[in-house]
Amino acid sequence: MIIDIDLSSQEDKNYKIRIDSLPKLSFDRKVAIITNPKVSGLHLKKLLNNLNATEIYIITVADGENYKNMDSVNYVLDRLFDHKFNRKSLLIAFGGGVIGDMTGFIASIFQRGIEFIQIPTTLLSQVDASVGGKTGVNNRYGKNLVGAFWQPTAVYIDTDFLTTLPAREFGAGVAEIVKMAVVFDKKFFKFLEKNSLKDEKNLKYAIARCVELKAKVVRADERENGVRASLNYGHTFCHVVENFTNYSTYLHGEAVAIGINMVNSLAIKMGLLKKRESLRILNLLKRYDLPTEYEIKDAEKFYEAFFLDKKSSDKKIKFIIPKSLGGYEIRDDIDKDLVMAVLKESQW
Amino acid sequence: MIIDIDLSSQEDKNYKIRIDSLPKLSFDRKVAIITNPKVSGLHLKKLLNNLNATEIYIITVADGENYKNMDSVNYVLDRLFDHKFNRKSLLIAFGGGVIGDMTGFIASIFQRGIEFIQIPTTLLSQVDASVGGKTGVNNRYGKNLVGAFWQPTAVYIDTDFLTTLPAREFGAGVAEIVKMAVVFDKKFFKFLEKNSLKDEKNLKYAIARCVELKAKVVRADERENGVRASLNYGHTFCHVVENFTNYSTYLHGEAVAIGINMVNSLAIKMGLLKKRESLRILNLLKRYDLPTEYEIKDAEKFYEAFFLDKKSSDKKIKFIIPKSLGGYEIRDDIDKDLVMAVLKESQW
Repeated sequence: MIIDIDLSSQEDKNYKIRIDSLPKLSFDRKVAIITNPKVSGLHLKKLLNNLNATEIYIITVADGENYKNMDSVNYVLDRLFDHKFNRKSLLIAFGGGVIGDMTGFIASIFQRGIEFIQIPTTLLSQVDASVGGKTGVNNRYGKNLVGAFWQPTAVYIDTDFLTTLPAREFGAGVAEIVKMAVVFDKKFFKFLEKNSLKDEKNLKYAIARCVELKAKVVRADERENGVRASLNYGHTFCHVVENFTNYSTYLHGEAVAIGINMVNSLAIKMGLLKKRESLRILNLLKRYDLPTEYEIKDAEKFYEAFFLDKKSSDKKIKFIIPKSLGGYEIRDDIDKDLVMAVLKESQW
Repeated sequence: MIIDIDLSSQEDKNYKIRIDSLPKLSFDRKVAIITNPKVSGLHLKKLLNNLNATEIYIITVADGENYKNMDSVNYVLDRLFDHKFNRKSLLIAFGGGVIGDMTGFIASIFQRGIEFIQIPTTLLSQVDASVGGKTGVNNRYGKNLVGAFWQPTAVYIDTDFLTTLPAREFGAGVAEIVKMAVVFDKKFFKFLEKNSLKDEKNLKYAIARCVELKAKVVRADERENGVRASLNYGHTFCHVVENFTNYSTYLHGEAVAIGINMVNSLAIKMGLLKKRESLRILNLLKRYDLPTEYEIKDAEKFYEAFFLDKKSSDKKIKFIIPKSLGGYEIRDDIDKDLVMAVLKESQW
């Protein structure tokens, strides 16, 4: 299955996402594969068997969010200059979201921008990170605070890579799939209720649906001035939970599941979501062993932390409130009392 | 005088260049002025007298090409995060090309891109660096090797800032003015022959003409896939001269003057430029005390260094050959023998 990502008027930014077995890839130029030791150990052989290029270099960075920083970026840039890469050279991001975000950022600033392609190897990056062109790294002030919008030339999604994925990481990917269904597509939500994503055919369909839905949103609002914020359903609470647990207790998708459950509670209080709809979402998340509760020690401190989020302006917090199943409202005018009531439900 | 920079289809990228006294500027958001100690000492008071904003921060980086690097970028980014800058905040580049290139790059990667405006304070940056959206920093592999294309929101060119400019830096700016005239506009070349740029009215006209000419080229080819390379007239030789003298003997514009004279010699050998046209260019450069000769010790070594330039592909060197006055050819097929003959003329 091939999905065209058409970013409106900017023709040179359009690209294709192919959901299928990894095809033979052939490039008449230098290529660098940016990857981590784990992905390299499990899957590099397969990629190399499918890849032809003038010269192929493997650049390995340590695995995990902690290494998604400027030091790793500078390390990779230096290797590219060592190998005499130029403006015609190509980067391949081969790994999960960390590798994808970092490789995209490097591609955007190497000699003012070169091409890169993505071969995402986790469910989360296949459904989410590989579409949209957001690239970046973390620093001591927070996540993804330095980066660029830079689109890949192509994305190859091969679900075979997921066979080695740990169950927790699979679940983390499912959380983002559920997110897309709840805010955009009730029919898709029902599909997820009825069908198991452990089945490959269903999984491929779900990935494709997420990619299509996200592509539509990105096309309408690449730089997140408006509707693209809808993709942050569950993320306002999620970011604080991740921050409070030093990004080490939960995988991102797990914190999203917790965040979804918390903002659903807010939506119920606002009369936008029914209790039984919230339970259907909860059940779906639990089916994939996702956590949905987080114990808040200090609700006031948790509330203050919302303002550190880069999506918040100085004085307003932005929430994506699910409106029944398949809809949403973007709101930045919610009373502190109402939010505090939700936070206090998580104090045991 | 206001010149509209219209970058074709990308409407959100258009901006205005105003050549006039610095106007009153008022912003309902946080502003950071990125500058260096020299410019700050001479002109900050004037800028602050003209500037209103919610909060104004001054971030000073050391002066010179040696500090146009990732360390300075990270230093400025950290200060912006310390001051809780967000996506609505604004940067002002207040200085020469180094400050402009670096501030533009920082604006392009801070939270995936924020707005910046340019107030160039040197002649070189007023005629050249403030148009075109090329941003970036140097590293140990070369100049401007890491960067982005990022357009300012507005450029304010006030020739009053030039009254404190040292004579050598003034001349360095003139070299780029002469460059524009030779490749694009014979009438403008004649104007420069007849009129002194020491006169403010003539200077303003020349700056405006350069900005217009460059804007036209950038509009046609923002990312330098084609005609934009014409702006590199004189620069192929210049980059090697700068490299061989550790970027410390000559100002960039001075090395451009040397490069212009060398490539003119190549153009004469190719029959594209007449000897007397070359002399008219030489006389114009000399009138502003620009150097035009550089002693080459080892012609072979000089030739090899062409391939380190990021504008060169693996095996080809790109030269912009002036074609009479007011024209040019972009050539990457010139025999080594011919180039060596030019280089040997500089061996004394």
